[in-house]
Amino acid sequence: MRIDDLATPALVVDVDALDRNLAVMAARFDGASLRPHVKAHKCTALAARQVAQGHRTFTCATPREVVGMATAGVGEHLLLANEVLDHDRLTAMVEACDRAGIGLAVAIDSVETLDAARRAGVREVLIDVEVGLPRCGISPDAAGSLADAARRAGIEVSGVMGYEGHLQMVTDRVQQREQVAQSMAMLRHAHDEVGGPIVSAGGTGTHRAHVIGLGHPTGVTEIQAGSYALMDTQYEELGDGFERALTIIGTVISVNGRRGVADVGLKALGMDHGNPAIDGATVWFCSDEHLTFATPEGTGPVVGSRVRVTPAHVDPTIARHETIWLAQGDDVVGQWSVDLRHW
Amino acid sequence: MRIDDLATPALVVDVDALDRNLAVMAARFDGASLRPHVKAHKCTALAARQVAQGHRTFTCATPREVVGMATAGVGEHLLLANEVLDHDRLTAMVEACDRAGIGLAVAIDSVETLDAARRAGVREVLIDVEVGLPRCGISPDAAGSLADAARRAGIEVSGVMGYEGHLQMVTDRVQQREQVAQSMAMLRHAHDEVGGPIVSAGGTGTHRAHVIGLGHPTGVTEIQAGSYALMDTQYEELGDGFERALTIIGTVISVNGRRGVADVGLKALGMDHGNPAIDGATVWFCSDEHLTFATPEGTGPVVGSRVRVTPAHVDPTIARHETIWLAQGDDVVGQWSVDLRHW
Repeated sequence: MRIDDLATPALVVDVDALDRNLAVMAARFDGASLRPHVKAHKCTALAARQVAQGHRTFTCATPREVVGMATAGVGEHLLLANEVLDHDRLTAMVEACDRAGIGLAVAIDSVETLDAARRAGVREVLIDVEVGLPRCGISPDAAGSLADAARRAGIEVSGVMGYEGHLQMVTDRVQQREQVAQSMAMLRHAHDEVGGPIVSAGGTGTHRAHVIGLGHPTGVTEIQAGSYALMDTQYEELGDGFERALTIIGTVISVNGRRGVADVGLKALGMDHGNPAIDGATVWFCSDEHLTFATPEGTGPVVGSRVRVTPAHVDPTIARHETIWLAQGDDVVGQWSVDLRHW
Repeated sequence: MRIDDLATPALVVDVDALDRNLAVMAARFDGASLRPHVKAHKCTALAARQVAQGHRTFTCATPREVVGMATAGVGEHLLLANEVLDHDRLTAMVEACDRAGIGLAVAIDSVETLDAARRAGVREVLIDVEVGLPRCGISPDAAGSLADAARRAGIEVSGVMGYEGHLQMVTDRVQQREQVAQSMAMLRHAHDEVGGPIVSAGGTGTHRAHVIGLGHPTGVTEIQAGSYALMDTQYEELGDGFERALTIIGTVISVNGRRGVADVGLKALGMDHGNPAIDGATVWFCSDEHLTFATPEGTGPVVGSRVRVTPAHVDPTIARHETIWLAQGDDVVGQWSVDLRHW
């Protein structure tokens, strides 16, 4: 089958580009120094490909991601890098990981999340520390006493995590490195109080500012990048040696002169970072099931032809689809289930 | 069960508010003068509630919506108000509707979409006419000859449709009525050439500008509103007697002073119309699985408490969820499957 034979909208991953992206990152952060974030692709089959690159620890954002990874038997240790209070879901994660013989650590940033973890039988936690992004995370000064409380409750505290999400899109490398260093100084300060072998941070946008094992001032032991595998138009601006590996194939369903409408709309896209892109065309706007675009002078689109749409933000885009189609060139060579969706 | 016992993020519909919205619209457009658009809720159970209000025709945006409605046996006549070229999906729609004894009309706006409909055994079409929104639709002048071609191909042409989507958010009533009248003059011009009993247009935002059966200049025979059932913060600005019936219940998973983080992120929301709202709080930003908000002076949020989040755009939000929970007050009284998702 050719990708132009797929029913549309169809999420298509170029496996060669994917493999190149995985290899580039694995060369920079090998083995357990990269803890790939599965929220970016929500796909155990893609995670297995990251295992093939030598990674054996994974980051998850939701209980269903943890349970799905454990059920599929992918990875050796999972980190739920998010606060969860839901007793049933925490318990399900513990049980699924125990059944699979996979390690599980859960992020906590409060006595309430510690208590929820304890009641669900979680045996290992990381202290989530706020390092500048106004989101989850305890203040660095309070991290030590939360770790003490966890240890008093009989829970292993294996370190700290902090996400410098506010620095992911700082395009000036020197400036970014300085800001990441400041942010990670906060994390190290917390780690001094917390202890444990893990200092986890970073993402695709900041990974270059982290160098592990060379005494670099960020001092992290692992980074949590996810988007590097498939990329999107936003991260592409950073130009870090990764390629766009994900496209949505659409069908042109209506044409009026140089204006075309493709069947790739809001329900096939994450729109929080704005409109998607079509090479060689200008995207006007998206509706529920439509993308209106215009082509340059003299090259009007054709009804029934295909367009390749690149989303501005890959994570929430993939979460809207059931299937990832694998392509080499224009040939469809396989399909993966987006099996880690929902909560 | 109480809504605060639901695992979060949870899509919750207030059934009393929903029923009031359905009754308000049914009083304005009764029976077949309203062809409710199922894309807004993607839920056959909710569509059945619209049947209980006296409506028996429905609008769909995707083949899966048509097949799902037919399989559930909801409605007597379905309109696919969108151009589809996919032979297998068109055929599946025809077969599902035939099996259910439900009528099916498909929108066409080109010889290509006519040909695809003919090859799939579609027996009834509407000519989709562009009436000012730069999206699908043939120009009014060309509508008659496309209708002629369809009839020559042995297909029944039962009229025209046109969507004045660009006018949905014109808040000045007088101005909106004038602009809708101009837009519908284009549709009537096309209808003069096309013929057939149906002139279909409109949406929640413009429904007040259409009055059916009183010789009003818009001259439509039915409107295609969908959002009125559940509403969102955007349509609410129009103030048309409908209430917000849909909320996403989130859990506060992290607190830092007056700042809180709830577990309702980009993967639980349609973000094309911007951030969601929380009554009594200021929404700062959303991440994949997080919503950071701030509460007023002196009323810091509490870890583990619940927040009620209203999306800015209901249609793409619902499409991200598997289940609609039904509530009366704070009691959960049932659940519906969001069974019309995907394509």
